[in-house]
Amino acid sequence: MKFYGYFRSSSSYRCRIAFNLKGVDYDFESVHLKQGAQKSPAFASLNPQKLLPALITDDGDELTQSLAILEWLDETHPDPALLPTDPLERARVRAFAQVIACEIHPLQNLRVLKYLSDEFGADAAATTKWLTRWLTDGLDACEALLAKRPRDSAFCFGDTPGLADVCLVPQIFSAQRFGVDISHLKRIADIHARCEALPAFADAHPARQPDFEP
Amino acid sequence: MKFYGYFRSSSSYRCRIAFNLKGVDYDFESVHLKQGAQKSPAFASLNPQKLLPALITDDGDELTQSLAILEWLDETHPDPALLPTDPLERARVRAFAQVIACEIHPLQNLRVLKYLSDEFGADAAATTKWLTRWLTDGLDACEALLAKRPRDSAFCFGDTPGLADVCLVPQIFSAQRFGVDISHLKRIADIHARCEALPAFADAHPARQPDFEP
Repeated sequence: MKFYGYFRSSSSYRCRIAFNLKGVDYDFESVHLKQGAQKSPAFASLNPQKLLPALITDDGDELTQSLAILEWLDETHPDPALLPTDPLERARVRAFAQVIACEIHPLQNLRVLKYLSDEFGADAAATTKWLTRWLTDGLDACEALLAKRPRDSAFCFGDTPGLADVCLVPQIFSAQRFGVDISHLKRIADIHARCEALPAFADAHPARQPDFEP
Repeated sequence: MKFYGYFRSSSSYRCRIAFNLKGVDYDFESVHLKQGAQKSPAFASLNPQKLLPALITDDGDELTQSLAILEWLDETHPDPALLPTDPLERARVRAFAQVIACEIHPLQNLRVLKYLSDEFGADAAATTKWLTRWLTDGLDACEALLAKRPRDSAFCFGDTPGLADVCLVPQIFSAQRFGVDISHLKRIADIHARCEALPAFADAHPARQPDFEP
């Protein structure tokens, strides 16, 4: 299996955590986002979106979109499970993951920040204000979804980490990187600390990737 | 089952198509997005994200995020299926749906367009340029994903409509509404026409909803 990612890409980070949790080995190919390597003809033919991550399976099939890759991984490597078995519980986990993947992440994407700078002249302060708005709105909603759980649990939706935790931890990394203060979100902070203590999460951290640049 | 939506919300439109395809009845509650009804305390307690859609099941459980609702619906009302059974094929369908739900839709959301206007002074031309960039990029990628299919089919990924079609048709409606020209996307145009000819899609159109306003 060949995985195309980048140390700082939070959607790549999600997949790395899941591979680690499931003990799945893969060859890693770094795609240097800051240098625009995702726009190369070779990568664009693999993923027409020119976005990370992408995966080539052992059978040579090409997969894109991190949430689709994560669900495929969970269906083909079911142990340990990233999703519960009950449809209602699955929907809660997926909704939480989608708050991050569909409402926060797209607005912090490199190409969007570049557009704001190029077209609207957004400076550092304006970019921080933009990021703060969407990260705070989204993570406040995540905290509220955790408060609505039928019971508290060590991880987002259970006693073991799952899809929601896999999406949450990279988003917290982004918040820290962008300097967005989320210290008021106590449930998220507790879960984040518990995840970071696990090797599957710690080993997936951007600073521990072969293509890391300080 | 009680469904909270709005005639023009494309994520609500996705759910309406799926309910129709599966023949699932529901009570409809309109949440007037343009008037900010999604920010009311009552709705915010149902969905802390203050976004549509939301669903209350017959058991009183609350669900949010359209893709999570659609997967829940497919798991609890499996006939006709929105997703294939093979994990690889499921991943392709989900990735296509996520191009729309994770990469296009968040950037055309009302709150984002309002931010561009309020904070960056975006006028109608600047807003159209923004929308054209993201809708064109995303739908070009969708067309390319269709070109990469192992075989052509009447609908996005099969001979019957599924999750990808359920997401595509509302996105085409948004492109038309925003005046974004996608006439060069021939596969999408063919599939769109085939979907629109089906009552499940036609009846879900914004213009046929009880809260429609011209």
